[in-house]
Amino acid sequence: MASGKYPPFGLRNKNLETVTDDFLYHFGFGNKTMDIPQVFGDTKFVCTGGSPVRLKLYAEWFSKECKIPCSENLSKSDRFCLYKTGKVIWVNHGMGTPSLSIMLVEILKLLNHAKAQDVKIIRLGTSGGVGVEPGTVVVSKNAMNGELKEQYVQWIAGKRVERDVYLDEGLQNDLLAMAKEMKIPVETGLTMCADDFYEGQMRLDGFFCEYNPDDKLGFLKKIHEKGVRNIEMESTCFASMTLRAGCKGAIVCVTLLNRMKGDQVKIDHAKYVEFEERPFRLVTAVIKKQLGY
Amino acid sequence: MASGKYPPFGLRNKNLETVTDDFLYHFGFGNKTMDIPQVFGDTKFVCTGGSPVRLKLYAEWFSKECKIPCSENLSKSDRFCLYKTGKVIWVNHGMGTPSLSIMLVEILKLLNHAKAQDVKIIRLGTSGGVGVEPGTVVVSKNAMNGELKEQYVQWIAGKRVERDVYLDEGLQNDLLAMAKEMKIPVETGLTMCADDFYEGQMRLDGFFCEYNPDDKLGFLKKIHEKGVRNIEMESTCFASMTLRAGCKGAIVCVTLLNRMKGDQVKIDHAKYVEFEERPFRLVTAVIKKQLGY
Repeated sequence: MASGKYPPFGLRNKNLETVTDDFLYHFGFGNKTMDIPQVFGDTKFVCTGGSPVRLKLYAEWFSKECKIPCSENLSKSDRFCLYKTGKVIWVNHGMGTPSLSIMLVEILKLLNHAKAQDVKIIRLGTSGGVGVEPGTVVVSKNAMNGELKEQYVQWIAGKRVERDVYLDEGLQNDLLAMAKEMKIPVETGLTMCADDFYEGQMRLDGFFCEYNPDDKLGFLKKIHEKGVRNIEMESTCFASMTLRAGCKGAIVCVTLLNRMKGDQVKIDHAKYVEFEERPFRLVTAVIKKQLGY
Repeated sequence: MASGKYPPFGLRNKNLETVTDDFLYHFGFGNKTMDIPQVFGDTKFVCTGGSPVRLKLYAEWFSKECKIPCSENLSKSDRFCLYKTGKVIWVNHGMGTPSLSIMLVEILKLLNHAKAQDVKIIRLGTSGGVGVEPGTVVVSKNAMNGELKEQYVQWIAGKRVERDVYLDEGLQNDLLAMAKEMKIPVETGLTMCADDFYEGQMRLDGFFCEYNPDDKLGFLKKIHEKGVRNIEMESTCFASMTLRAGCKGAIVCVTLLNRMKGDQVKIDHAKYVEFEERPFRLVTAVIKKQLGY
């Protein structure tokens, strides 16, 4: 797929064009209760990930490193947290594509209300590795769904809609080059997006399990041969919505285990913290370079 | 479907039967770090809902009303919060079936480790009404997915797996009778489970919208004729996993708007708070009666 694949950024909803009173329900504010252009107009990067505590921590680290102030939590709802440090938004997305889709739609509406330009959106996550060692950072080439197709499936009006998925090649190359410079263990490959943590990822340690260890290993080998290097729960929706909106997107996940060797995360706390820092260190190095921070 | 549809409660995973060291990753504890039978063995009800703040509040209200202590947050992870008041667990599930599935699998593993018996699981949520007035409490008859089928679809090993969905009739009848006694506006009907808040529910106020207001209204009329009275994002997974596990389940959601008349929630804060209390008042009245609190 060509790197010029992204359409220009802009609202894809005629019904909303003339609306002046829009409330971002899951952030708990709207353009009647916040000066969105003033607060968010200069945004150039949106960094996101599942956990609210991790995203808050990332925002605080970035603020400290760059010596720029960190906002308070700008979200007035407990569904997501939302911080801003200079031109960078930090927002969590919860777990799974439905939760991510809500956050992305509302962030895209926010960027549109703010008249922000040339915004890149990066997901920094944790994942299960497929044939890669724990601690490896996987920069996703593209996303694959549970049907083993590179697409995001929506059900609209009772009909199946298949959406293209794509991640920005330029951003991938910048991230890979920076990882090598920083000596962060890095891989690139497809990311599989599962709709659950247990059966959808063929874990053997769930409450339900109707397959055996051989089925599991056979499946992991099959997706590894297809080019999959990690499994998480948000990539197809992310790679579809950023493409449709016209915002360059990247997904950078650290692997916490090698699923070929087990299902439970067995690393100790210190290592966990260090692994969790890797996507942050890598992504913020690229952001700082691009923004001149 | 018969009311005796539930199999006996029990682990559905042979691989886990002999495991003594199981870690509930998204609660941040396991049977090596907590005495799970001691803490959770007496559980009779699990109450769940999307928002962490609301579930904490519900636990505190229940504790105060019943004059029984409320635990601290027992979850050691920020993915979910988890409280216990006597024989009742309060746990949030985030938004969407993937997030709910993680919580349910880990709660079911916890109940199994705890050797808890005859546990009922109730989801107390918010939803969009379909042809019912804001503030109405909908006790779900069953759940319908985005394909307009009463089933929950999983993708396991690249293959589509269709699961039955069912909600306990006895619990539904108890809830409906109690609502009438308490004069809480109540309806019963199918609950549609969408995989996103915007396009999947045919809202006109998302960032993306490829249909028009007539398409939206036509769709809502169609599902209303099928018996749908509200739309949320978790019911199919809930009604499938509780059935498979052998735990009686019920879904009780208040509607915050009538989707036939709009897409944005327009009620004021005081009304919102009162509406949000209704599923709590109804469900806890039934629980208190059943437990003799």
